[in-house]
Amino acid sequence: MKNKINYILKERKEKIILPEKLGFGQYFTDHMFEMDYSKDKGWHNATIKPLSEIYLHPATSFIHYGQTIFEGLKAFRTIDDEIQIFRPDTHLERLNNSAKRICMPAVDTEFVLEAMRELIAIDSDWIPNKRGEALYIRPFMFGSDPALGVRPSSEYKFIIILSPVGAYYPEGFKPVKILAQDDYVRAVRKGLGECKTAANYAASLLAANEAAKKGFTQVLWLDGVEQKYIEEVGTMNIFIHFKDEIATPKLTGSILPGVTRRSVIQLLKEWGLNVTERLISIREVIDAYDSGNLIGVFGTGTAAIISSVGLLSYKGKDMMINNGNVGELDLKLFNELTAIHYGEKEDTHNWTFKVEKKAIEV
Amino acid sequence: MKNKINYILKERKEKIILPEKLGFGQYFTDHMFEMDYSKDKGWHNATIKPLSEIYLHPATSFIHYGQTIFEGLKAFRTIDDEIQIFRPDTHLERLNNSAKRICMPAVDTEFVLEAMRELIAIDSDWIPNKRGEALYIRPFMFGSDPALGVRPSSEYKFIIILSPVGAYYPEGFKPVKILAQDDYVRAVRKGLGECKTAANYAASLLAANEAAKKGFTQVLWLDGVEQKYIEEVGTMNIFIHFKDEIATPKLTGSILPGVTRRSVIQLLKEWGLNVTERLISIREVIDAYDSGNLIGVFGTGTAAIISSVGLLSYKGKDMMINNGNVGELDLKLFNELTAIHYGEKEDTHNWTFKVEKKAIEV
Ligand SMILES: Cc1ncc(COP(=O)(O)O)c(C=O)c1O
Ligand SMILES: Cc1ncc(COP(=O)(O)O)c(C=O)c1O
Repeated sequence: MKNKINYILKERKEKIILPEKLGFGQYFTDHMFEMDYSKDKGWHNATIKPLSEIYLHPATSFIHYGQTIFEGLKAFRTIDDEIQIFRPDTHLERLNNSAKRICMPAVDTEFVLEAMRELIAIDSDWIPNKRGEALYIRPFMFGSDPALGVRPSSEYKFIIILSPVGAYYPEGFKPVKILAQDDYVRAVRKGLGECKTAANYAASLLAANEAAKKGFTQVLWLDGVEQKYIEEVGTMNIFIHFKDEIATPKLTGSILPGVTRRSVIQLLKEWGLNVTERLISIREVIDAYDSGNLIGVFGTGTAAIISSVGLLSYKGKDMMINNGNVGELDLKLFNELTAIHYGEKEDTHNWTFKVEKKAIEV
Repeated sequence: MKNKINYILKERKEKIILPEKLGFGQYFTDHMFEMDYSKDKGWHNATIKPLSEIYLHPATSFIHYGQTIFEGLKAFRTIDDEIQIFRPDTHLERLNNSAKRICMPAVDTEFVLEAMRELIAIDSDWIPNKRGEALYIRPFMFGSDPALGVRPSSEYKFIIILSPVGAYYPEGFKPVKILAQDDYVRAVRKGLGECKTAANYAASLLAANEAAKKGFTQVLWLDGVEQKYIEEVGTMNIFIHFKDEIATPKLTGSILPGVTRRSVIQLLKEWGLNVTERLISIREVIDAYDSGNLIGVFGTGTAAIISSVGLLSYKGKDMMINNGNVGELDLKLFNELTAIHYGEKEDTHNWTFKVEKKAIEV
């Protein structure tokens, strides 16, 4: 049962023509993967079917009590017209960690990876081929009991949808402006920060809105206890490039263990650089800036890959970083990762998983 | 437009027969209220229609990013067979406060109250009449943009559903066992604790599960910063009855400003008792227990109204409160509030709002 996928395929007569400006998360492919969980049956009803609406009883538990998690990863069309997914195994491992934190069932990661590949193979014509473009993959799961009451749901739904996305930097790699603030807290240790669940994003909206009004792209979150240590930025992890160290906040439970973060740490180590995971106070960053020891600041995440920070502001102090230009190291990392994504460079880490463009037997 | 409700009514031939055991949030009435929000039109499409499934695009923003809030209040059938709602104005005010915190639009509280009354009038046969039973009212709102990306939704849906609920204490008012722990944090000041949003409930599940395994009904949360001050219990606010003071945690942003809490504070004041809102450390509670100054501990909330705590446990120290019996004051408060709910006592505070059992003109 578990390892069988049912197929209901859409008949498409017209050719897929992707819009010029894809943006992010605006367009979706023809199909979705879906499966259900119940205490008795475990995961069942695994189906690839035409993208369609989900029907929910208005009392469905996750709407009220937030039992919902997700992942975000990408598939790329390589320069040899092959299709490959970046680190899906690591993303699915994180999905299961998220599930555990809020009492949701784990998925069989191998089976889900297989389903993801099948789904991508079926909708492969939707994968854009311009440099910087990709197929964004969004697996998610939610508690689906049709009853009110704060408790873990006994039924769940797991879905994967696919969205062709545009280049994050259509006009070239451009530094962003970020604001460190202590008016709001996003997550706290022993809370949900390391879990990729809706809660953390809801918690970020108001601060992000207020930062945007002041001209900033993102908020740099400080820890929820002392509001002293830097944590992460919007949907990216953060790296501080000091004169003789590249430091990133250690995983204390309140930040997401980013897959890009992990990849970047590995690359930096391989390049022989001094990379550390530790507590970094905002004070330390300011002091390094004032004494000329701050070389650069950059974010890492699936959407932007690498994002240079050109301006960091905290309590009215504006710190222009690297004269507002893209850092040398940032660009090197971006080029290295994208070279792996698009198959220009050999994948020596086994980070990429090929998708066979086989005809699906149904 | 705004102040017009469309009616699509269900034809019901059979008589409504309520189950013997209603429980909580298991059964729903025939109809629901629904309206939509868009930037252009504001709130529109206000409709009372048969309870039915909600259709959602799988990319619907709140599923992924948690922009969802709710309220929970009750309507009662009085001893004179009238119907009244308890403090709906205060609940809707709180709904709008929740909305603001996560960048959602406010509702017109007067209009929503009117819609709520109409909905209840239409489904009034669903209101149970046994003492302790009630009609639970669940208004909720969510961001409905069919696109991925962390930002406030531009479209929203607001819904009210109704659920006949059983007596919380079918076998009589019974004390509960609660566990104070510092393994998990539910909410932190400057976060979402005071906002009635899904995030806080998701954050509570794992700790509640672990407490349940140890035989406790609920978790007593400690503050997220120092893990020193008591905050609230599951879905209740908490009151500590010291020898010459009844204290409840003050609203520091991380706890829900309970409507029952507010009502209890007012009653206690009117009864000439010394009630305070302040920081209360778990240490202080233990010391009071050890020195014989702890008279009682009780929770307040819409579901249970008042809940006596018979056992409070913290780091292996079990504190049996009032010999595990219901406190005198707890029972007095419970009786006072339920007397108002069921119309046995005059409502001198204007807390109750009558629902006219008129025939609806459609
Ligand atoms: C809160 C948060 N932090 C960091 C990241 C970066 O993680 P990853 O590199 O796995 O995409 C993301 C994006 O997914 C995120 O949502
Ligand atoms: C977290 C939380 N605290 C406290 C309460 C009690 O609030 P109220 O008295 O308004 O029902 C509730 C219940 O709604 C709750 O969910």
